[in-house]
Amino acid sequence: MAEITPHTRLRPSPYYEATLAEGVTAFTPYNQMLIPMGYGDPEAEYRRLTEGVSMWDVGGERQIQLHGPDAAELAQILCPRDLSTAKQGQGKYVALCDHRGTIINDPIILKLDDDRFWLSIADSDVGMWARCVAAERGLKVEVTEPDVSPLAVQGPSAEDVVAKIFGDDIRDLRFFWFRDAEVDGIPLKVARSGWSKQGGFELYLMDGARGVDLWNIVKEAGQPWGIGPGYPTPSERIENGLLSWGGDTDQNTNPFEVRLGRFVDLNVPDDVIGIEALRQVAAQGPTRHQLGVVLDGDHPQPGHDRWHDITADGVSVGSMTNGTWSYKLERNIGFGLISAWCQVGDRVEVHKGDQVVGARLTDIPFQREDG
Amino acid sequence: MAEITPHTRLRPSPYYEATLAEGVTAFTPYNQMLIPMGYGDPEAEYRRLTEGVSMWDVGGERQIQLHGPDAAELAQILCPRDLSTAKQGQGKYVALCDHRGTIINDPIILKLDDDRFWLSIADSDVGMWARCVAAERGLKVEVTEPDVSPLAVQGPSAEDVVAKIFGDDIRDLRFFWFRDAEVDGIPLKVARSGWSKQGGFELYLMDGARGVDLWNIVKEAGQPWGIGPGYPTPSERIENGLLSWGGDTDQNTNPFEVRLGRFVDLNVPDDVIGIEALRQVAAQGPTRHQLGVVLDGDHPQPGHDRWHDITADGVSVGSMTNGTWSYKLERNIGFGLISAWCQVGDRVEVHKGDQVVGARLTDIPFQREDG
Repeated sequence: MAEITPHTRLRPSPYYEATLAEGVTAFTPYNQMLIPMGYGDPEAEYRRLTEGVSMWDVGGERQIQLHGPDAAELAQILCPRDLSTAKQGQGKYVALCDHRGTIINDPIILKLDDDRFWLSIADSDVGMWARCVAAERGLKVEVTEPDVSPLAVQGPSAEDVVAKIFGDDIRDLRFFWFRDAEVDGIPLKVARSGWSKQGGFELYLMDGARGVDLWNIVKEAGQPWGIGPGYPTPSERIENGLLSWGGDTDQNTNPFEVRLGRFVDLNVPDDVIGIEALRQVAAQGPTRHQLGVVLDGDHPQPGHDRWHDITADGVSVGSMTNGTWSYKLERNIGFGLISAWCQVGDRVEVHKGDQVVGARLTDIPFQREDG
Repeated sequence: MAEITPHTRLRPSPYYEATLAEGVTAFTPYNQMLIPMGYGDPEAEYRRLTEGVSMWDVGGERQIQLHGPDAAELAQILCPRDLSTAKQGQGKYVALCDHRGTIINDPIILKLDDDRFWLSIADSDVGMWARCVAAERGLKVEVTEPDVSPLAVQGPSAEDVVAKIFGDDIRDLRFFWFRDAEVDGIPLKVARSGWSKQGGFELYLMDGARGVDLWNIVKEAGQPWGIGPGYPTPSERIENGLLSWGGDTDQNTNPFEVRLGRFVDLNVPDDVIGIEALRQVAAQGPTRHQLGVVLDGDHPQPGHDRWHDITADGVSVGSMTNGTWSYKLERNIGFGLISAWCQVGDRVEVHKGDQVVGARLTDIPFQREDG
């Protein structure tokens, strides 16, 4: 296996030294940063997330700040979702699209104030995109990447850990809402969010020099609940139907193909990027959709390093975009991005290099009885 | 050290299996792909590049194709360099800028035809950028990423190897020019280019399924000259003054700060992105410039994983953006991005964590007598 380390094109996260001390064994690049992807015992790390509490360095989830008199206008132009009712302190999940209606990121947009928004982004250069749109349309808004690096606390016991640090009031925070907080002089925002379905919070560290301090505070507070290091966990997120933008999408994927149609508001103003194309897709119906794939066999299969072709009765119908061993189903599962005429229950074949594996299509999220 | 492997957000290069077979030991991510950065013996790999011939998987240097009736117009809008005299078959190095005159990539633009250009890019999403500009300005041009993955052949013997494969005519190819070619049914373009100063070629593979075949053809042809695997080599490129966009630049770097002013034509049309800002910088002079840094001490110093502050007599003057052990100078050297009033010959201090190392400023490229 080949190595990777930070260098000057690839920034260390503020939590980097802490994750080294915890024994990180794998990284993935994310927005020119490294996100830990393993600490040596995948099953224990899955159990910790789904049965206890796990802490993740997701500093690579960068914030793109829109600030200025036209910030709200730019936010709406970028997002094919109605932001007019968004309240200060509220976040909303958005399928950010280009002019063709193709998803180019799926951020949470956080409304900090009437003239200040953060796009908490997946792995593509939304800052570059937003600056281009702002300049081309002559908007008065500054687009920057402030010093903000999330630390996720995820799992059934996450609320107890976060309440121990910040007080029981934090239990009232609603999903995707956030508030200002401070601990040991470290400025933060605390949001109820995170890329798992186990419940939890993201601590938006606002001083990169204090990353290791924050890590150690959370680690100490979580001891009674057996907290330990973790990361966005393929098994858990695929079992529960969370999308990986760039992993489950290609250069032509629109929101309706990947179960994000409910986040698109077709009645936003006409100057919203991509809305015209999205209205067309909505009217005609998408030609592909995303279904679950449960592969035959009940032992973990080798790694899944690229998209695999799917055929039905030998006819190409699409691809398995991600695959993983599911600890819950005890099956190899994945997402299929496939022709709209394929249905739940259909038998298909997954082509992994020279190997062909039988599979059946299911709904997403997966149910235990799919196993 | 932590591991990295391809996955569905991080595509394997067409040469990936070949590099595994060669024993690759380290990767760096580049445009959602992995570029090899080591095969276990850095000094041998440096010597091979500077004294013989080296072959590099640089499939991560993606091509962004502009195609259509307005392709030439879009190319010029994106590039603050006069493209009106560019000939079919010619490439030109460009400091691609945003509206603020900040460098957002430094591609080679290849003119394939009057209505077709490739931007052979560094590590940022120029495709997204170009699509945004094209759509916002209503241009008739399609922006795509075709199946093209360069394999670099670099070093004093590179021309002999490439001539052995494609014939002696290829020796006439001028710097940054390219031509169509084919070997064993593999479609290619051959360009005289590459991210070293040792001379060489880049083979633009146009069929991703044939990567390993092409690798093996080059490897076989290069045997008489002792060819072996390599990669963009920090020692060689820093000694010779090649810029790493994103490594030696920050979110506010303009071309005049990093020795790229000669690639900016101030008289391009006013609708060229960033030209207004660049004219201002040119008129006022940049506030920072890039100089060489030669650190005290004649033994290799530990890795350089982030920018290091530089002070002069205790006053902050900028940063060392990249550093490396130079086999030629037998010194630790790097690039400084520092206040314009700092001069060649000045003594400065480089702050590497808790350690302070004395250094002196030099011209770039470095000369052996700087050691």
